[in-house]
Amino acid sequence: MKRLLTLLASCALISASAQTVSSPDGDVKVSFSLSQSGRPTYSIDYKHHKAVLPSGLGVRTKQGDMVEGFEITDITNSSFDQTWSPVWGENSTIRDHYNEMAVALRQKESGREMIIRFRVYDDGVGFRYEWPEQRGLTYFVVTDEVTEFAMSGDHNAFWIPGDYDTQEYDYTESHLSEIRALMPKAVTHNDSQFVFSPTGVQTALQMKSAEGLYINIHEAALVDYSCMHLDLDDKKMVFRSQLTPNAQGDMCYICAPCHTPWRTVTVTDDAREVLASNLILNLNEPCALEDTSWIKPVKYMGVWWEMITNASSWNYTDVPAVDIESFDYTKAKPNGRHGANNEKVRRYIDFAAEHGFDQLLVEGWNIGWEDWSGKSKENVFDFVTPYPDFDLPALQAYAQSKGIRLMMHHETSSSIRNYERRMDEAYQFMVDNGYNAVKSGYVGNIIPRGEHHYGQWLNNHYLYAIKKAADYKIMVNAHEAVRPTGLCRTYPNMIGNESARGTEYQAFGGTKPHHVTILPFTRLQGGPMDFTPGIFCMDLSTFAPNGSKVNSTLANQLALYVTMPSPLQMAADLPEHYAKYMDAFEFIKEVAVDWSESHYLLAEPGDYIVAARKAKESDEWFVGGVTDENERTVEVDFSFLPKGEKFEATFYVDGKDAHYATNPESYDIYTKKVDAKSTMKLRMAAGGGFAISIKPVK
Amino acid sequence: MKRLLTLLASCALISASAQTVSSPDGDVKVSFSLSQSGRPTYSIDYKHHKAVLPSGLGVRTKQGDMVEGFEITDITNSSFDQTWSPVWGENSTIRDHYNEMAVALRQKESGREMIIRFRVYDDGVGFRYEWPEQRGLTYFVVTDEVTEFAMSGDHNAFWIPGDYDTQEYDYTESHLSEIRALMPKAVTHNDSQFVFSPTGVQTALQMKSAEGLYINIHEAALVDYSCMHLDLDDKKMVFRSQLTPNAQGDMCYICAPCHTPWRTVTVTDDAREVLASNLILNLNEPCALEDTSWIKPVKYMGVWWEMITNASSWNYTDVPAVDIESFDYTKAKPNGRHGANNEKVRRYIDFAAEHGFDQLLVEGWNIGWEDWSGKSKENVFDFVTPYPDFDLPALQAYAQSKGIRLMMHHETSSSIRNYERRMDEAYQFMVDNGYNAVKSGYVGNIIPRGEHHYGQWLNNHYLYAIKKAADYKIMVNAHEAVRPTGLCRTYPNMIGNESARGTEYQAFGGTKPHHVTILPFTRLQGGPMDFTPGIFCMDLSTFAPNGSKVNSTLANQLALYVTMPSPLQMAADLPEHYAKYMDAFEFIKEVAVDWSESHYLLAEPGDYIVAARKAKESDEWFVGGVTDENERTVEVDFSFLPKGEKFEATFYVDGKDAHYATNPESYDIYTKKVDAKSTMKLRMAAGGGFAISIKPVK
Repeated sequence: MKRLLTLLASCALISASAQTVSSPDGDVKVSFSLSQSGRPTYSIDYKHHKAVLPSGLGVRTKQGDMVEGFEITDITNSSFDQTWSPVWGENSTIRDHYNEMAVALRQKESGREMIIRFRVYDDGVGFRYEWPEQRGLTYFVVTDEVTEFAMSGDHNAFWIPGDYDTQEYDYTESHLSEIRALMPKAVTHNDSQFVFSPTGVQTALQMKSAEGLYINIHEAALVDYSCMHLDLDDKKMVFRSQLTPNAQGDMCYICAPCHTPWRTVTVTDDAREVLASNLILNLNEPCALEDTSWIKPVKYMGVWWEMITNASSWNYTDVPAVDIESFDYTKAKPNGRHGANNEKVRRYIDFAAEHGFDQLLVEGWNIGWEDWSGKSKENVFDFVTPYPDFDLPALQAYAQSKGIRLMMHHETSSSIRNYERRMDEAYQFMVDNGYNAVKSGYVGNIIPRGEHHYGQWLNNHYLYAIKKAADYKIMVNAHEAVRPTGLCRTYPNMIGNESARGTEYQAFGGTKPHHVTILPFTRLQGGPMDFTPGIFCMDLSTFAPNGSKVNSTLANQLALYVTMPSPLQMAADLPEHYAKYMDAFEFIKEVAVDWSESHYLLAEPGDYIVAARKAKESDEWFVGGVTDENERTVEVDFSFLPKGEKFEATFYVDGKDAHYATNPESYDIYTKKVDAKSTMKLRMAAGGGFAISIKPVK
Repeated sequence: MKRLLTLLASCALISASAQTVSSPDGDVKVSFSLSQSGRPTYSIDYKHHKAVLPSGLGVRTKQGDMVEGFEITDITNSSFDQTWSPVWGENSTIRDHYNEMAVALRQKESGREMIIRFRVYDDGVGFRYEWPEQRGLTYFVVTDEVTEFAMSGDHNAFWIPGDYDTQEYDYTESHLSEIRALMPKAVTHNDSQFVFSPTGVQTALQMKSAEGLYINIHEAALVDYSCMHLDLDDKKMVFRSQLTPNAQGDMCYICAPCHTPWRTVTVTDDAREVLASNLILNLNEPCALEDTSWIKPVKYMGVWWEMITNASSWNYTDVPAVDIESFDYTKAKPNGRHGANNEKVRRYIDFAAEHGFDQLLVEGWNIGWEDWSGKSKENVFDFVTPYPDFDLPALQAYAQSKGIRLMMHHETSSSIRNYERRMDEAYQFMVDNGYNAVKSGYVGNIIPRGEHHYGQWLNNHYLYAIKKAADYKIMVNAHEAVRPTGLCRTYPNMIGNESARGTEYQAFGGTKPHHVTILPFTRLQGGPMDFTPGIFCMDLSTFAPNGSKVNSTLANQLALYVTMPSPLQMAADLPEHYAKYMDAFEFIKEVAVDWSESHYLLAEPGDYIVAARKAKESDEWFVGGVTDENERTVEVDFSFLPKGEKFEATFYVDGKDAHYATNPESYDIYTKKVDAKSTMKLRMAAGGGFAISIKPVK
């Protein structure tokens, strides 16, 4: 690691002419100036392209607007170049290399001081508002942030509806000007949702300009602030930040000295660089945990898909309501459909252990599932009491005797106070019973009522849960929480998140095949997703009262373990479905979940992604390729392999007649010798893909 | 204890003609009927008076109104007579004797079932809504409760403004018809307040009819529901219940089987019976704690009045903001005014210990007071870190070496999540450091923002804090929490509450002299108040930068220890002020804080109260008398004393020239022999009173 910090310039009371700062390679340039009214304004150029046209900045607060009337009091330029090693991830080292310009401003009338800090990387820009300690501004309430992102044209965009409570939507690919017309169809039902505008969209938002520029807007290091969405002025093609309000309509309560999260614009003319970008991680603070030795990537199975598909139930009995403090489950009539029962869990343990998994998630193990959802019930779960047919200590002991662990599940039903009140006991219970990872969930509307999933109140909670989990050496995978913004760098025990439409929606009516070619450009920009891939039985009606079909081929499912990198990967299907295709299952068994290097070979959002990765502390490689609803043949160049070494590759590809809709489970497996000079044409069926495992020939 | 439960009548599908139930002595009669539209309706008669005219009942919910369209399906009558012993209180035993009528209703169209249960005591009525387990109604959201209390005339009322966040108002005495005009003047500033109506008032509301009937409306056993206020239709003289909404405007989230708190109407033609009533306590559940041996009444002093009067400060340093996680107080500049410093606390300990007090409250002992109020700051206190000039272990050890304890202080600044997150650690810290009682505070607007002090969310919190404190054997005295409703019967570690305008307001501009003649009829109906009496120096400017004067004579201050009974009584003034009047201070030293019997000798709300009480496990008696702004002479009849026994009484009376405004510290002390046959005329000055301690002559 080297660290280089150079003060390039600093001078008082700068004129209002544009101040610029460029990326280390010179391709990205930020220009800052004040408008005639004294409004801070920035623009971003990439090579000869306009990535962001001049766009206004500012924040409105209950204590007064900080939007106009500014003068520049100081400009500080510096550079930074450092290499750091994440605890887990796509690469074993990451270079953090940027040029910085901090513009110190004073609002003439109020005397208030604000700094806008830009960090310019080779692949994009981060900037944030900072308020130094000052007289006249201490505690303040942000009522609106008016950060603009002015687009240079009617770009193509991959968007989901802007919502304060969910990101679980299918992506729509359209021009910006089409968002308004397409919005009603894009807004599908969710248990908790609040769409704030007919032209509002979520970040990370991936766009592509007519001239081939890839522009991605997101944020980094969302801490003690509310989540930013984007609201589009579709006449001017200008996005404006839309923060998530609290129950009273206020956005954030903060106190100087403080700063906002980073607002980020990734910009490149090569789609693969978006996927390879470390901009978001780099803008986060270094690891805050002293000891990270207990954080281990996890490959797991789960008693879960059968509940999602409605083949079995989370709840033990069928009654309209239970008081978890007094209801006597031992006297209740079992509904006969309870998934998390001793016999079944043992079967799952046997299978998962036999095939080398680390953990087995069991949902529905604990009391309270009879009336957990949609009731605004506060005292909904206790997180420590198993159902009578789930002998927790015996099952955990059985699992550990076979070399795996049970994985804990904490569905909170968004009853936040109840969870926080019980959190210490729940985490201690995990420690006492041999658990070291928890999947948590935030289904339904938030209690306290009126708060939103993505507001400051909840963001504060999610991080509280992560930090407290670290005290107990527990890894957390939160579902329905705010979409990640790279905080896993600082808190690497945050090993997963959902915060997007995961595989479960294949059981809720299906997901568009292009989904997995977009998520890495959007949701995954902020951190890994517990996408729960690995479905091998695509017609759910064959085993469950469920008319849904999985819009994916089996080879596509395998590829996801590489194209959707995560330190937490599930094999989501039932053991009996894997048993039918044990040759294909071999890939899931072998594929790594942590990497020393990653290469994006081919990528186009909405169309296809091909990625190659080297397993950490190993000389094995894995390649994954996915396509959208279109069949396509791609040429894979194996030059990512070390030169002069020989490898044997096992190919898992779509069968000739494979098609996500008509023949999803058709695949072929073959092996071939490859080396760094190899290239190979590989066909992907509609909704299909391929996976390759590559081992050195000794 | 005897228990008698008789089923008197039960019959199906009753006609709509009035059903009645009377009190054991026959004086109070409740009539129930359905209106033509099928609305449940009740009235209350007392002897030949109409206490409550026919008044509608019902609840509106998001799942449908339950107001009209009812039929009676069953009426169940029963009687109950039991005597129980409170852990502490005004009497060592309490008789719970009532006749009950439970009216089972079915809403014809919806099929919903609701029971209205009446309990009729000799001194009033309690009734509540109950929802049995049923199909078609499980979880529901109460949006309005439309319980009416129709008055028979334009009664005189002792009222404070109806508010969702505070009861800290001076009382106004007026006819009901005058409330609207007097409201603007009655609404004085509070750090958190929300007045909901120009004719809204708080309970307990004391009224007196032209014919001399005392009618008091309140509630009992407020658990998991929102607090009820009253909104007056001042044309019809009908009060309607007004619940406290949450941030979204909803009142309560409940699930059948469930019930509301009891709505209570105390009714009598003798004002003394209002004060002697145990209606509210009786309507609460029995003690829920198995072991109550650790609950001990407490007489205490405090490093507090000097901060309230602005003679010293809670905060240690003067900076606009602190981050309690990182601010280094050891490097901060002390402001020189910090009250809770080692030297001063030792002086207080010396004085309090010398004079036999149990505990010494110290406010401002802990970090965070620099910016604690009005900032909507969430992470405001940690409850475990003392300021650098407060050597907690040494001071507690010093106190205990002298036979007393320090009393903990937890101001929460209404940052509820912060308090709950830290509560276990804070209580454990108390146990580890020898504390067994805490004064908690809820100043300012609630966080989560939009919630109110008296809403279901907060009521749930207050009780959570009480129950968890019991786990640690900690007694709680919560200030600014919801006004009590007799829950101290169930949780007797709830040894105090504020929830009204306490003595502190004498330092904030003064309080009307009649205040202490009203509080026992209103605020004290639900439980004891930490009123903090005992001020001996009435001109605050003599020792503090404070222009306020205490509107009370010194003898009046002494009387409050008897007229405002509480198991937690403070001697609130500074040691140096007591040192000037050590002969008068003797009464505070001697007076008991727990009683075996109590007698209200004379009472008229707004005018005067004279009470006599026997100390528990003792043969000493104490008498207190207070008057309003009018001088008056009362005749005290000592027939409460055991017949045939001789006593020596020490009288603490207003001096001849005493007057709360002009000569408040003038008093006389003399002794006299008394027995059960004695009567005595005693003069009280304007704003004055008297106190008597009575000891048997051996």
